[in-house]
This record gives sequence, structure tokens and C-alpha cells, in this order.
Amino acid sequence: MIGEIVQMAQNARRAARVLASASPAAKALALRRAAARLQSEWALLEAANRQDLEAAEAGGLSRAKLDRLKLTPRVRDDLVAGLLQVAEMPDPVGEIEGLSLRPNGLQVGRMRVPLGVIGFIYESRPNATVEASALTLKAGNAIVLRGGKEAFRSNEALVRLLQDSLLEAGLPGEAIQLVPTTDRSAILELCHLGGLLDLIIPRGGKELIELVQREARMPVLAHAEGVNHLFVDESAAVDKAVDIALNGKVQRPSTCNALEKVLVHATIAPEFLPRLEAAMTQAGVELRGCERTRQILPTVKAAGEEDWHTEYLDLILTLKVVDTLEEALAHIARYGSNHTEAICTNDHAHAMRFLREVDASLVLVNASPRFNDGFQLGLGAEIGISTSKLHAYGVMGVRELTTTKWIALGDGQVRE
Amino acid sequence: MIGEIVQMAQNARRAARVLASASPAAKALALRRAAARLQSEWALLEAANRQDLEAAEAGGLSRAKLDRLKLTPRVRDDLVAGLLQVAEMPDPVGEIEGLSLRPNGLQVGRMRVPLGVIGFIYESRPNATVEASALTLKAGNAIVLRGGKEAFRSNEALVRLLQDSLLEAGLPGEAIQLVPTTDRSAILELCHLGGLLDLIIPRGGKELIELVQREARMPVLAHAEGVNHLFVDESAAVDKAVDIALNGKVQRPSTCNALEKVLVHATIAPEFLPRLEAAMTQAGVELRGCERTRQILPTVKAAGEEDWHTEYLDLILTLKVVDTLEEALAHIARYGSNHTEAICTNDHAHAMRFLREVDASLVLVNASPRFNDGFQLGLGAEIGISTSKLHAYGVMGVRELTTTKWIALGDGQVRE
Repeated sequence: MIGEIVQMAQNARRAARVLASASPAAKALALRRAAARLQSEWALLEAANRQDLEAAEAGGLSRAKLDRLKLTPRVRDDLVAGLLQVAEMPDPVGEIEGLSLRPNGLQVGRMRVPLGVIGFIYESRPNATVEASALTLKAGNAIVLRGGKEAFRSNEALVRLLQDSLLEAGLPGEAIQLVPTTDRSAILELCHLGGLLDLIIPRGGKELIELVQREARMPVLAHAEGVNHLFVDESAAVDKAVDIALNGKVQRPSTCNALEKVLVHATIAPEFLPRLEAAMTQAGVELRGCERTRQILPTVKAAGEEDWHTEYLDLILTLKVVDTLEEALAHIARYGSNHTEAICTNDHAHAMRFLREVDASLVLVNASPRFNDGFQLGLGAEIGISTSKLHAYGVMGVRELTTTKWIALGDGQVRE
Repeated sequence: MIGEIVQMAQNARRAARVLASASPAAKALALRRAAARLQSEWALLEAANRQDLEAAEAGGLSRAKLDRLKLTPRVRDDLVAGLLQVAEMPDPVGEIEGLSLRPNGLQVGRMRVPLGVIGFIYESRPNATVEASALTLKAGNAIVLRGGKEAFRSNEALVRLLQDSLLEAGLPGEAIQLVPTTDRSAILELCHLGGLLDLIIPRGGKELIELVQREARMPVLAHAEGVNHLFVDESAAVDKAVDIALNGKVQRPSTCNALEKVLVHATIAPEFLPRLEAAMTQAGVELRGCERTRQILPTVKAAGEEDWHTEYLDLILTLKVVDTLEEALAHIARYGSNHTEAICTNDHAHAMRFLREVDASLVLVNASPRFNDGFQLGLGAEIGISTSKLHAYGVMGVRELTTTKWIALGDGQVRE
């Protein structure tokens, strides 16, 4: 297997060199062809997906996970729309920024270029196969995919379709490859391919991400958990604050951008907390709170120290009353995980201070934390959300899969 | 010592939080005060430097290295000019880019923010202490410095001066700290401070860089060696090509942006190579060449395979005759180290193709590779040259010591 994965990565490197200077039109054509094939070859994809579903059902996979695994017409239509959107986006490769003249007449700037070969290790739905491949292709990179066991046949069929689309556009099929095994050992082998992969992106549970961070011999872009707060300031519009908290918690509680904690200013707490409790209780959310919360909402369970650290990914929400913006900022600095932090306020100075001082990949004013998503933020799609600050902090789209090199245009300049 | 370095890094983290929201004026004041103190406290600095010089001379340090260690009035004046230049540059922190409206009215963009705490491990001249500190301070970061043994007293005196300047501007002195030992173990301790340092930058020999890359538990920005080429195309102006090659090789041969190899198109080789040989021989450069070079320059020594891989950092240059631009591009892709690559040509299509296809941190047309330097490229100064593509590729100045977070301004938006 080691030899096979090394060979695969070497083929990807060769393909990446071709992709790096491929025309924007050829890359867009491959994406449009993939969208067309998703429709014309749907029966084949459904058949492969059905095999995965049957095996997973026999293996006792939960109903929720089976739902995520299933390629439905709705999933297809979303993937088609996404592919067409990425195809139409401006091509970032070759963009030149800031080409300015130095005193000696040398013209200096930066040119945007692909990263090279990306390793993508994921556990999630087969959709990710198409979305990640589309973004890396647009950015002029090759990708080596290692998907989850349950989706293996679906992923195989999708990768074949993507490769056929590349070939149709005159591009090398080896720019998108799937590791032909779902053994855990394949993850380690990918991590040890220093020099052949320029970047590795793990997407999945904490255990997977920590494994890749520990083992990888190349840069890793990973996201930590989202211990996300909403601070409801003294001047907040209570209706909007309740709506935002409810949306953040219940719209999809299992995601990393879901709301986990609400901090509320003491002045507004007696009005806000009962309204919040009513809305959350109706939505089936379990509330936990600090002592001062429980003075206002006596039936709420007492929060322990670990509650402040925990990403529940479930219908549980912890509440705290604070006296000042400063106290909220200090709490977030201590317990937040640099993922998504929001304030509800009508005080401009407080909004600006929160925006500037909170260290998170997305900081929101008067909006739901659920917007921390590449599509929602206007990137078309995302390959992940980075919570480390180097290279990319937050949602990663096409641009985050490129870098810039320096260029200099002279007419004989030498250094004195 | 471990406890001491951990404590130092924790203090740096606290200072970094203050620096992150410090005003541009306060940071600029600290830089201007440091420039003033370099002049007013010159006698103290000279005295500390003299101790280093005496110890180094007694220890048998080479004349060249003693010269690099010495704080001369010329070095002082350059540092003063550099500090004032960094002080006057626009402050990148808090800049907001691309604040655009999403269809739901949410206004989304990116805000530039500091990285946090930088670890800087260097072997070079005491100048680096001031230059690296100035850049990290401007970018709103704290820095923990670990300099070379020979410059320890000079570095101590310079860091004290920088800390006094911070305090004068109302900023925490612990934003700039020097590890109080030059034991090698201190390097390992810094590398293992995962969670306390956001980035580590090693600057020095290959051995140091490989050690840091192997041991670091945090992102590393490092530069590999510079196996740098000049391709002299068929249409090159021979005079300019000779000047550029000579400047690249001899202006300062010990630097990573010096020229190491010249590839020349077969058509122009009979005219170019004798002129190049005359200029290089006069400058004391030893030439090595491929078989076809030696048909034109019979006294040139034959180049072996390892010559194509070697960064000499010395007055040695290897020459190769090629038949096409493609052959030059393939040779550079195979043997280059992604550092600095140049073409001399008057053919526009060749210039553009070289610019686009060569994968190096700086690609030049008709100019000396010696321009791969932060000051020369207009950054004011540099903290290093990265040859890895993530985060920064090429010279790193103030902007490369920051990152961006996403911000979103709403009026109650929730996700459907």
C-alpha cells in the first residue's frame, strides 16, 4: 500500500504542474462537465451509493448517519449548483497585485499561484468529495482524497466522474485521486509524504484532527472545536437576540458553528432570560446557568466549570450573567476556541470594540454564528474552517488554496 | 531554565494581548524612541559590543564573522533609518478588506489582526535583534528572541533599549524579550512551547533550520537554501546579462539570494560565454560547466551531477548550455530550490511564460537575483525569506506577521 500511495502522490505532483499553467477556460470546462455528468450519470452514482447504504445499514449505522450518507436528488442539485458556481467564479491563478515601481525602476508585485498537491482526509458525506475537488481544481492544485469507509463506493464513483470530466477538458485525470483503501494506515501514510504533499487538510472528529496534526510532516490546516458565545449587551434588541440565539443553537446543533454559550448583561438579563428560556424550552433545548442566571430562571440546572469549556454539539446551552462588556471579553478570551463569536448590541462603540478585540475566525455583530460557512460568507463553497492563524484563519475557499509568489520586471537592474 | 522560558512566553502572551489593541501612534512612538535611543545610548551599546568582540576574538572567530558582529556607526545609522521607516509605514492592524453585502444584507469582510507571539531563533548579526523586533512590534505581536552566542551581550543591551522604548510609549516591555541563555537546549524548549508561541522563525544555517522544523510543535516559517538560476535567453542583451550574472554572483556571494547557476541558450552561448568568463575570471570566480560549455570555454572545469544541486555560497558558478526555454524550465523545476530564479530575455512571450511557470519565491525578468530582499522589494525590512508556500512565500515583512479574521455586521440576520 505504501508504494501505491507514494506513486499516487507522485502522479498528483506531475498533474499539479500541468494544472498550475492550465487555462481558466479548461478548468471551468472540467467543472461544467462534472455538473453535466452528475445529471447524466445519476443512475450509476445512485447504484454505487445504494451499495454503501446497504452495507452501512447492515453494519448498524445510525439513521442520522445513513441520512447524511445518502445521495438524494436534492444533494445532486446542490452539487450541480455548486460546481457551476465555482466554474463561473473568477480564476485566482495568475492574478497580479500591487505591481509598483521601485526607485530604481524595477517593477515589483505578487502573482497568485497554486499551492501544489493537497491531501484531504475526511469522514463526512460524499458531497465533500465533489466540493473539495472542485475548489482545489479551480485553484490549480491536484488533490489526493481519503474519504470515510461508509462512503467508499460513492466516493469511487464520484472520483471516476470527476476524472472523466478533467480528461474531457484536456486536463490530467490524476489531478483528482482517491486513496483505494479506507484503512487507518492510509492516513498515516499520507501524513508521512513530506515533500510530495504541500498541505494536508483533515476534516472530521477531534481524534482524526489530532492524529493528523501529530503525524503530518507537512503544513496542516485544521479546525479545532467551536466553543462559540453570543454576548447579549445591555442595549441589545431583545427580540433579535432571542432569534439569533435560537437560530445559533437549534438550526443545526451538530455543526462547529452552532452556539454553545450565551453571556448576558445584568441590566437586560431579567427581560432577556425568561424570553430565551421560553423559546429554548419549546425547541427542546436543555439550559444550564451560572448562579445569577438561576436567580432569574430557578428551574435551570447549575453549570459546572467544565460546561464553560464544552462544545456540546447537542441541544444544550449554558448561560451566564455578566456585569460589563469587559467581563464578557475576558470570559471569551479564556474559554472561547477562536472559532465563532457574536455580540448583540445597539451600542456602536461596544460593537467596534468586540469586533476588534475578540480573537476568533469570525466575529459577528447582530447575526447568527451559523453564518460561519464558506457559502454563507460568499466564497461559493468551503473546504473547511481553519482555527489556526497561519495562512488562513476561518473559512477556506478557492483563494485559501493558493499562495502568492513575488515577481520583478526589470531592464537590467543590478544591486549596488 | 524550562520554567524560566515558559514564564517568559506566558508574559509575552499577556503583552501580545495589549499590543494587539495598542494604537498605531503608540507603536510608532516606541519605534521612534528606539531610533533616538540608538543614538543617545550609543556608548553603552558599543561597550557591550566590545565585550562580545573581545570574547569572540579570544575564541578565534574568523575576521569575516568578527566584522559581521561589530556594531559600527554605519550599522547604527542603518538601524536608525530602518526603525524610522517602519515607524512611518502604514499600520496594518485593523485594516478591513472587501466589506461587501451578502444578499441577506449581512456585511462581510476581513480584518487584519496580529498573529500573537513570535519565536525568533537566529545566529546572525545583532542588527537582526532590532530589525525583527521592529517588524513584530509594528504588526502588533510580541517576540521572544534567541540570538547567537557571540552576540549575547550586544543583544542584551539592544533588547533593554527596545524595552525602555516600549515603556516610554506606554506599552508592555515584555513584548520584546531575549532568552537569557545561548544554550542549545533553549532552542528545543522554545520549539516545544506549543500553545504559547503562534509561530517560530529560524534564521541561520541549514542545521538550525532542520532542527527547528523537526522539533517545533507550532507553525514554522523557514527558508531552504537558494540554488538560484539565471537563464540567458536567445534574445537577451548580452551586456545586461553579463552585468546581472556578475552582480548576482559577486556582489555578496555568501547570501541565499546569490546566483549559483547560469543556463544559456545555445544560439547566444558562443557570444555570451566568453564575455561572462572574462568578467567572472576578473572577479575571481571559479567556473564549472557542462560539456557544451566546455566546447566554448575549454579551460572551464567539468561540472558533476552534484554541482547542479549545490548552493556554493562562494565564488563558484556552474554553467549549462540549453537548446530551448522548455529545457531551461525543466532544469529549474528539477534542480531549483524555489528561492530566486531569473531570466534575461527580450522576448515578451518568453518573459511571461517564465514568470508564470517558474515556481520560486521571487521570479525576475532582466534583473539581479540579489533583489530578493525585503528592503529591495519595498517592505522596509524583512524578518526572513520563506520558501514554503503556506502563509508567506518569499520575503516576509510586517504584513506577513499578521493574519486576517472574518467579520460580519448584521441587524438580526439568522440562517434559514
